[in-house]
Amino acid sequence: MIENQVVIIGAGIAGLKAASELYKRGFKSCTILEARDRIGGRLHTVTGYQNRRYDLGASWHHDTLVNGLFLEELNLPEDQRASFVFDDDSMVVFDAEKGRVDQDPEMVLEILLEELVKYSQLHFFEDLSAQDLNYFQMVVKYLYERRGLLTNDQIRFLPQVARFMELWHGIDWKSQSSKCLEIAHQGRNALVLNYDKIVRRIASEIPESWLQLSTEVKEVRNDGKNVLVTIDKGETISCKYVIVTVPQSILAHSLQPEPRVGKIEFIPPLNVNIQDAFKKTHYGALGKVVFEFDDCCWSTERSRILSLGKSSSNLSQRVREARDLSLLVEELDANTKYQFERGDSWNFPLLFVNMVKHTGIPSFVMLMANPLTKYIESMNDKGKIFEFFTPVLENLLKTLGCAEPIVKDFENKLVKSNKKAPILKNIVTTNWTRDDYALGAYSACEPGDDPMDLVLALTENQTSLVRFAGEHTIMDGAGCVYGAWQSGKREADFIADKLA
Amino acid sequence: MIENQVVIIGAGIAGLKAASELYKRGFKSCTILEARDRIGGRLHTVTGYQNRRYDLGASWHHDTLVNGLFLEELNLPEDQRASFVFDDDSMVVFDAEKGRVDQDPEMVLEILLEELVKYSQLHFFEDLSAQDLNYFQMVVKYLYERRGLLTNDQIRFLPQVARFMELWHGIDWKSQSSKCLEIAHQGRNALVLNYDKIVRRIASEIPESWLQLSTEVKEVRNDGKNVLVTIDKGETISCKYVIVTVPQSILAHSLQPEPRVGKIEFIPPLNVNIQDAFKKTHYGALGKVVFEFDDCCWSTERSRILSLGKSSSNLSQRVREARDLSLLVEELDANTKYQFERGDSWNFPLLFVNMVKHTGIPSFVMLMANPLTKYIESMNDKGKIFEFFTPVLENLLKTLGCAEPIVKDFENKLVKSNKKAPILKNIVTTNWTRDDYALGAYSACEPGDDPMDLVLALTENQTSLVRFAGEHTIMDGAGCVYGAWQSGKREADFIADKLA
Repeated sequence: MIENQVVIIGAGIAGLKAASELYKRGFKSCTILEARDRIGGRLHTVTGYQNRRYDLGASWHHDTLVNGLFLEELNLPEDQRASFVFDDDSMVVFDAEKGRVDQDPEMVLEILLEELVKYSQLHFFEDLSAQDLNYFQMVVKYLYERRGLLTNDQIRFLPQVARFMELWHGIDWKSQSSKCLEIAHQGRNALVLNYDKIVRRIASEIPESWLQLSTEVKEVRNDGKNVLVTIDKGETISCKYVIVTVPQSILAHSLQPEPRVGKIEFIPPLNVNIQDAFKKTHYGALGKVVFEFDDCCWSTERSRILSLGKSSSNLSQRVREARDLSLLVEELDANTKYQFERGDSWNFPLLFVNMVKHTGIPSFVMLMANPLTKYIESMNDKGKIFEFFTPVLENLLKTLGCAEPIVKDFENKLVKSNKKAPILKNIVTTNWTRDDYALGAYSACEPGDDPMDLVLALTENQTSLVRFAGEHTIMDGAGCVYGAWQSGKREADFIADKLA
Repeated sequence: MIENQVVIIGAGIAGLKAASELYKRGFKSCTILEARDRIGGRLHTVTGYQNRRYDLGASWHHDTLVNGLFLEELNLPEDQRASFVFDDDSMVVFDAEKGRVDQDPEMVLEILLEELVKYSQLHFFEDLSAQDLNYFQMVVKYLYERRGLLTNDQIRFLPQVARFMELWHGIDWKSQSSKCLEIAHQGRNALVLNYDKIVRRIASEIPESWLQLSTEVKEVRNDGKNVLVTIDKGETISCKYVIVTVPQSILAHSLQPEPRVGKIEFIPPLNVNIQDAFKKTHYGALGKVVFEFDDCCWSTERSRILSLGKSSSNLSQRVREARDLSLLVEELDANTKYQFERGDSWNFPLLFVNMVKHTGIPSFVMLMANPLTKYIESMNDKGKIFEFFTPVLENLLKTLGCAEPIVKDFENKLVKSNKKAPILKNIVTTNWTRDDYALGAYSACEPGDDPMDLVLALTENQTSLVRFAGEHTIMDGAGCVYGAWQSGKREADFIADKLA
């Protein structure tokens, strides 16, 4: 049996940061157990066509006024920190039929979205016991109650613009809690180029001998004095404290009797507060598809382009004629079921990050939410994924001033003749929903959820030897890299103070 | 001596609403004493060239998700309510040298302003005991601390864009509290056309005999059982309750020994809480100048145009070279003193409401803040006012696609020859700072102020026979028409419940 002061389960940014802090505080024996054969967890930089590099996991510094990781990076010499660019200029928004609808002085959809989110907040603020609604229901409620103040075009397009929020939460509007809808931005968002530099920097602060890759933890046994951590190779490591940084989705396995890849058996089992809290929290699946072109033939003016889901031209009539809100919700719900057949990329909001603007790389990184993420990640066929998104992609390019049809050249056989034709060289997709150690992206809230419960349940027990860190264990920066990073520091500080 | 159940001092919207509620609740004897020869107070609709109508006082429904007056209006038959238009499409912003700077994908000044306001909030949120700063100091602090993340153009233009807030608060950035800076919008803003219709509607709900115009109140004597209200004509009216709705600026006279027009002597004097609270509250002066043209020769696309104060081309260099924040603040402060000579309209942010977009009326209603308001209102000469604003006006028209010089024709002598030349027919200005019964616009906060104190001091005494209403006596809707309206209802309900 190996003896350690601390075992850290997971070498994502929470685990790495915890280890680096412990090392700084003088700890001599610590082991980081990582199930994957790489560090970084949901920070994952990959290489595409011509060595272009993309972050398939998290890719922004959010909340840059309060983001501790960002502020730490800023204080480093420029060559030691990861580059970043502020890419939060106002979005281009387009609809398949209508074309551009952003910054329209008649529709003012940005202003309406702001009002809608405020409307939702007030709904719960004015009646603290008000039942949570899904976001789709809230949107319809807003349209119904404010219809006298809205034009037909506003009623038609606002719902699809509202779905932009899906790309923050990673789940679709019919699954999203209205109560947990708002994103309270604390400063601008900066795109990181790329996150692996930050991961490697933090990892470099830790002795190499601490890190053990491709090692799954099977059991965490807490006898009150020590914790015994058993790994898949049969070994057991004894320690004073363990920090569990596995994603919420994986931690949830521990509450179920079935065996699952990545499942950790806790002895004694996770306490009843944690069990209850898991009933009030869910998990999103923000996915990405990177479209890599040979050359740029489109406008580089704007950083982000939102493609709207298809709108219904008779929606305003329905909303105006409705006599009962719940019947209207039911009717519209039935009329907006998801369909995944070819061409139905118009069923979903899609955010395209125009990489060329800031990096010169002629690729679009497209963001999508569940259930689309799950569907696309299951396809595993670049040709079919291209087919699925072709209508949107061609409209995107047209919106950005490039009207030529896209030429697919995955085998790199084309000799380029027409400088203006967009030649698609490669597609890169995420695989988070099929990754046994992630099963999606990050915490998300369905109606009735309360993310605070899980944070409290995982952090309130100030005497436990089994500690938790990760984006799901913290309120400030929840779901963000810097939240995970901060939670790792929090647990390291706690343990260092206890063992001091 | 006349006997009454209630005396209301002031026939602004708070007083009128209070009276209308009392009448609905069955009160038989009530007197509204109004010093001016008209009702409405700081709601004041006037007529200009060719019977065009403008609101020189309040002119918007703010916070339309929660604005009780707006929601009441919505429920009326259309012919009974005042028309309104949502005029909150995104602003055109121009600088004298640079031209348009709004929605610029490189400067993103709108995003930076949002970040700046959040930065200011966080400053006080992270340290509850942090000393208040004036808004100018806060802007410089932001620039200094974030300079590594800002471009030269951003440093140059953001401060002037930030001054847009002056036109919300009615005071300049060097007088404005950063702590009370944020405007928490609760829904869209709608321009009312015109407010006199609402004033008249509410007034029509009150018996005519209740209203006494051109009557100044001299003394309010509370003997614990009754209140004796003495007016300038020597009469005394006895009542059970008095509702004092005079503006904060006028109420403040009661704390000073000097005689002043509009001053009310309270016996016993206003209590010590009120006296203390007055030390922590101030008063703004949002002024307006209406420029009335013969015909429209400019773009009608956008509702609002912000003209920026002049920026300093070497500001970014100064900010970047600064080694000490407080020295930088001092230096920049000294370099941005106000000058009111001819042509110095470029010293101030000015908001132009493009009336023609929604009403067809070819006039601009220009909003300005103190100290400019006071200066302009003291001029009392249309020709000189035109001269002062000519550079900005001509740039405004150029920005909106009309490059011809403005022809002044106040005497209406011109026969129009060139259809494209903008012919200025008239100028209408406010006079609030010189109006003895207003002395400005509405409550505003200087550094260190806390508006909550005055609201509490004027409303907390639940046994007093001397009641207070008005925009300065309420938190939700403070400074707004609907806040004043709500406060009138609050006091009427209170008295009705007590006397029931």
